[in-house]
Amino acid sequence: MIDEETKRDALGRLRRIGGQIGGIERMVDKERYCIDIVNQITAVKRALDQTALIIMKKHIETCVSEAIKKDNSHDKIVELLDTVDKFIR
Amino acid sequence: MIDEETKRDALGRLRRIGGQIGGIERMVDKERYCIDIVNQITAVKRALDQTALIIMKKHIETCVSEAIKKDNSHDKIVELLDTVDKFIR
Amino acid sequence: MIDEETKRDALGRLRRIGGQIGGIERMVDKERYCIDIVNQITAVKRALDQTALIIMKKHIETCVSEAIKKDNSHDKIVELLDTVDKFIR
Amino acid sequence: MIDEETKRDALGRLRRIGGQIGGIERMVDKERYCIDIVNQITAVKRALDQTALIIMKKHIETCVSEAIKKDNSHDKIVELLDTVDKFIR
Repeated sequence: MIDEETKRDALGRLRRIGGQIGGIERMVDKERYCIDIVNQITAVKRALDQTALIIMKKHIETCVSEAIKKDNSHDKIVELLDTVDKFIR
Repeated sequence: MIDEETKRDALGRLRRIGGQIGGIERMVDKERYCIDIVNQITAVKRALDQTALIIMKKHIETCVSEAIKKDNSHDKIVELLDTVDKFIR
Repeated sequence: MIDEETKRDALGRLRRIGGQIGGIERMVDKERYCIDIVNQITAVKRALDQTALIIMKKHIETCVSEAIKKDNSHDKIVELLDTVDKFIR
Repeated sequence: MIDEETKRDALGRLRRIGGQIGGIERMVDKERYCIDIVNQITAVKRALDQTALIIMKKHIETCVSEAIKKDNSHDKIVELLDTVDKFIR
């Protein structure tokens, strides 16, 4: 589960990402150089990666850890790895 | 250079991506399940990949093609590959 | 820690990957079509991803789980996420 | 088409990658620390990326460029982008 600190951090990052998407829309609208647009998209992907990683970290520290302590973690670990698997493609 | 069709297509995609980012912000704000949030971030990354690919395609069809026809493509090809290199990390 | 089953599974995958690398060497040596070579490299990357995921899974089920049960998991979780972070780039 | 220089460069890289795969097999066999094994897999993926990029570069400089000069590049560009698309997942 997301705690207050992670929530604040993630929301700040997502707001900045939303702003970056708006910036890319303006670049496309003004027909800016393709390479510069693609490089900005790359920057947004990196920012999304970091956001996903802080949420995954909190998930391991809370839900996954709790399941491990109850010796009932099999499904939670399979679900986590499936999520990482989709995430890396 | 981006033509009208690519511009319309890319802008439509970026607007939908902006909407998805807003949706993820709401998920975080309502403390939705971490795995669902990460899966949504994965979906946005895939949508950004598709947007970058249509812009790269147009770039190859216009700027890179023009440079190749003028036998002056070395720098354009190096720049393109550097961009793909950053993009895949 | 890797158990016998994970070891056997990972070693089988790595041996097949070694064989695929040898196949790509022969493709390059015979100057096969570039696109076919790149697609084979993509297949090897996917096979490496799957190998890494089964090792990460075992790591979470053993080392990370043990640390969580001892309430001493902070460093192990940071290390895991750093590894995922490098892995996805 | 691959020229002699690209061939030599790619074969050297693939041989080193084959050696790295052998090294990872030994790490798994000796039950080395999971995180170290995954980090080695990450290193091989990066080496494969670089190998694919030099082959793609040569492909653009030869086959794609030739098609562009003949004003017959549509299929070649679609094929190239499909390959990049698979490659980044």
